[in-house]
Amino acid sequence: METVIPDLEDALHDENLDPDWDSARRLGHQMVDAAIDYLATIEERPVWQPPPPEVIARLSATLPQEPQPAEQVFADFRRDVLPYNQGTVHPRYWGWVKGSGTVIGAFADFLAATMNPNVGGLNIAPVYVEYQVLDWLKEIVGYPREAGGLLVSGGSEANFVGLAVARHAHTQGRDREEGLTSHRPLVAYMSSEGHSSLQKAVEILGLGNRYLRRVPVDENYRIRIDELEKMINADRNAGLQPFCVIGNAGTVNTGAIDPLSDLADFAQEQGLWFHVDGAIGAVANLSPRLRPLLVGMERADSIGLDAHKWLHINYQVGCSLVRDRELQRSTFRLIPPYLERPTRGIGAGPEWPSEYGLQLSRGFMALKVWMSLKEHGAKKYARVIEKNVAQAQYLEQLIEASPRLKLLAPVSLNIVCFRYQPEESSEEKLKALNQELLLRLQESGQAIISSTTLGEKFALRACFTNHRTRKKDVELLVDLVEKIGRDLA
Amino acid sequence: METVIPDLEDALHDENLDPDWDSARRLGHQMVDAAIDYLATIEERPVWQPPPPEVIARLSATLPQEPQPAEQVFADFRRDVLPYNQGTVHPRYWGWVKGSGTVIGAFADFLAATMNPNVGGLNIAPVYVEYQVLDWLKEIVGYPREAGGLLVSGGSEANFVGLAVARHAHTQGRDREEGLTSHRPLVAYMSSEGHSSLQKAVEILGLGNRYLRRVPVDENYRIRIDELEKMINADRNAGLQPFCVIGNAGTVNTGAIDPLSDLADFAQEQGLWFHVDGAIGAVANLSPRLRPLLVGMERADSIGLDAHKWLHINYQVGCSLVRDRELQRSTFRLIPPYLERPTRGIGAGPEWPSEYGLQLSRGFMALKVWMSLKEHGAKKYARVIEKNVAQAQYLEQLIEASPRLKLLAPVSLNIVCFRYQPEESSEEKLKALNQELLLRLQESGQAIISSTTLGEKFALRACFTNHRTRKKDVELLVDLVEKIGRDLA
Repeated sequence: METVIPDLEDALHDENLDPDWDSARRLGHQMVDAAIDYLATIEERPVWQPPPPEVIARLSATLPQEPQPAEQVFADFRRDVLPYNQGTVHPRYWGWVKGSGTVIGAFADFLAATMNPNVGGLNIAPVYVEYQVLDWLKEIVGYPREAGGLLVSGGSEANFVGLAVARHAHTQGRDREEGLTSHRPLVAYMSSEGHSSLQKAVEILGLGNRYLRRVPVDENYRIRIDELEKMINADRNAGLQPFCVIGNAGTVNTGAIDPLSDLADFAQEQGLWFHVDGAIGAVANLSPRLRPLLVGMERADSIGLDAHKWLHINYQVGCSLVRDRELQRSTFRLIPPYLERPTRGIGAGPEWPSEYGLQLSRGFMALKVWMSLKEHGAKKYARVIEKNVAQAQYLEQLIEASPRLKLLAPVSLNIVCFRYQPEESSEEKLKALNQELLLRLQESGQAIISSTTLGEKFALRACFTNHRTRKKDVELLVDLVEKIGRDLA
Repeated sequence: METVIPDLEDALHDENLDPDWDSARRLGHQMVDAAIDYLATIEERPVWQPPPPEVIARLSATLPQEPQPAEQVFADFRRDVLPYNQGTVHPRYWGWVKGSGTVIGAFADFLAATMNPNVGGLNIAPVYVEYQVLDWLKEIVGYPREAGGLLVSGGSEANFVGLAVARHAHTQGRDREEGLTSHRPLVAYMSSEGHSSLQKAVEILGLGNRYLRRVPVDENYRIRIDELEKMINADRNAGLQPFCVIGNAGTVNTGAIDPLSDLADFAQEQGLWFHVDGAIGAVANLSPRLRPLLVGMERADSIGLDAHKWLHINYQVGCSLVRDRELQRSTFRLIPPYLERPTRGIGAGPEWPSEYGLQLSRGFMALKVWMSLKEHGAKKYARVIEKNVAQAQYLEQLIEASPRLKLLAPVSLNIVCFRYQPEESSEEKLKALNQELLLRLQESGQAIISSTTLGEKFALRACFTNHRTRKKDVELLVDLVEKIGRDLA
């Protein structure tokens, strides 16, 4: 098939996508006012409310053909999008594990998008800002500056990168050229409380979920190293190749922190890669009082962490750190002719971040981390993190003081699992009761918590990664749960 | 090792990371003014200038411990970051393949970060906005609404997702559980002009670069299907398993578009997955005049495209589209107990976007696409895309009219490869001359282009994915190249 490229000489006009600058300036001011008003009065609104059918209908319209004024687009946003937000910015949002964002982080995303750099590489300030932010995150977890690192989309990608480097290390670099089809199965180990993103990483890397072992946990939901050792021995005897042990710095169900120091010793003895999933808890290392819980993390070969969780950087930004920088680079580095790096000009400068991960084009995610850490400083961040742990402990006390509430797991960090249980009852009935209670609580718009299952037990689950939460909000949560529970019982 | 969780009762304070609202409002207004001033006067500044040593030194300081005023952080940004930008927002930036961003896209990133939703799922407007944007992108490439899709970080991840689904389809879903270690080698095919991200995807997926075939191209840099067929036959005879053919909708070197309709026929006959890398050219389908070049793309099983390239959405955002929605979902779907979806409450609503890709937590990238497409509309976008093609054709004419410039490849779309060649000379000398010319042009701050290698030839390379470029900028580029060339010769 021969395709003729059309002659577009008549399209040599100068039309572009820029606005009238005065109108854009006015609109920008209106947006800032709307955003500040929204956050400053967030408590006056429900934490969450569902988008009604007419909004959903409008959000199903086909591709707009003709231009419309930016003011109208903003009005559409205020009518159809802003009111039906998730609520992570509200002081009573404790669902799943979500940060609250910072105001300067939102400003930073505006400035970053205004500059519009591609932070895949080149000799530009945004690349240096990213490397500085990576150095700060290394400081936080106790890694040396020489370590490798990359900002990524979140904990899932950070775990994925860590395991990719582990695979690369174990195959002595042959995985890139040869693939895995002629390789013996590689086996990874995590506790039964390990996050689903680790399974996703193992699957995508072609390792196979059946080779990701779930090691039993103790009564505090921490990995049992004796069981881990048994599994590894069995796998070795079966001709498989153990290659990676994963430790949790804060599990998603209960916030449990595996014995990281013991795991580091064990992985070293066994010659295995040691990866720490620190998406939830790694940044608690900012607090001198919480740091003892995380000792051993700094000995990991790789760490995955999140900045949009307990660092409250606005979605999305996570971080992959790898102790051996060159190993991370050799896992991903790929320099075709159109990316050759000269010693002068825009193509010079520091190593390209894109050599350390999946993406070639990369946004300026670093700026919001940079501005937020600069404004607030490490010590204030530490205090706000400690506050969340104190709030989890306070909720634990309130639960234990109530005859109708029952704690379902030890409070290891910032997550509390409990249920409404006015009397002994079957698991089935308690599950139905608490499921309905949870939905009514969410539908009330007063507070958002989520749920999980611990063994056979359905649990209400409150996660304190919210810098806006106050003591009185914790008290209100207990009151609401008790009240809805009474109404249901 | 037993770790005692510290009692943090004394940390039950109410400190948070919120600013003084009036100060934040004032600062936000200053930022809007600075951003609008910056963009409205962008021509008065160099396209690019290197960050000086004192800036680099300041961008190496350790983690700040104490808070500092947000105004000071913004001043640091204006001094150390903004002036050393990449220049994609400047009308004379034509390096690599980078979009220019839109003003409403920058505003949208601010609003998205203010809302701070995690668009991994839940019954919230941002999830509906993402699905609407995906429907619009499907419309643009000619896919049905029923197709699957996901916003991702860019073309690299979009290609990665497409090939992951192809692997999943070919292994009939066994890849997730079994991995690849007991599988016969799977072979993918792309032209020798295929992008490096496709190699990265193949490597990360555990398939092995040696099983990614590079098929020779014709004189227009388009894949030769006769050669492709020979390779597939040879691989089948060798006991390997061909599984995927990749077509380029715009190659990175020259903008060549493979014969997509013929490839679609061929893949269908052979029972192979057909993936189109449309990172550069897929959105040219917006233009009725360019659409004939892309016929066949709409028959692909999966398409990777970028919104931060020729749609000018601010970094970063790309899109993976997969014709068979359930297949994309079954490649990635993973629902642990803490993510179970009820029929009411915040956890209800449409399918979770996180079931279609690597990420669980996901930012609100969709908003900037939504606002920019709403403001400008499809028809204006089409005109601006056509303008860029017209500018590439105009540059081609100016090069052919000059006795000192030589075109090195046909202009297939929006990319022009050429060199300064005042007389016949050795390839080595011409490379040295043009390399130095390129660096001096970049260092002049007057225009940014990049380079590549075509066969043995070092080429200057200008890519028109810039909505701000005017006819006079193209003329200035030719004048600058000629002038620097004369100075060097």
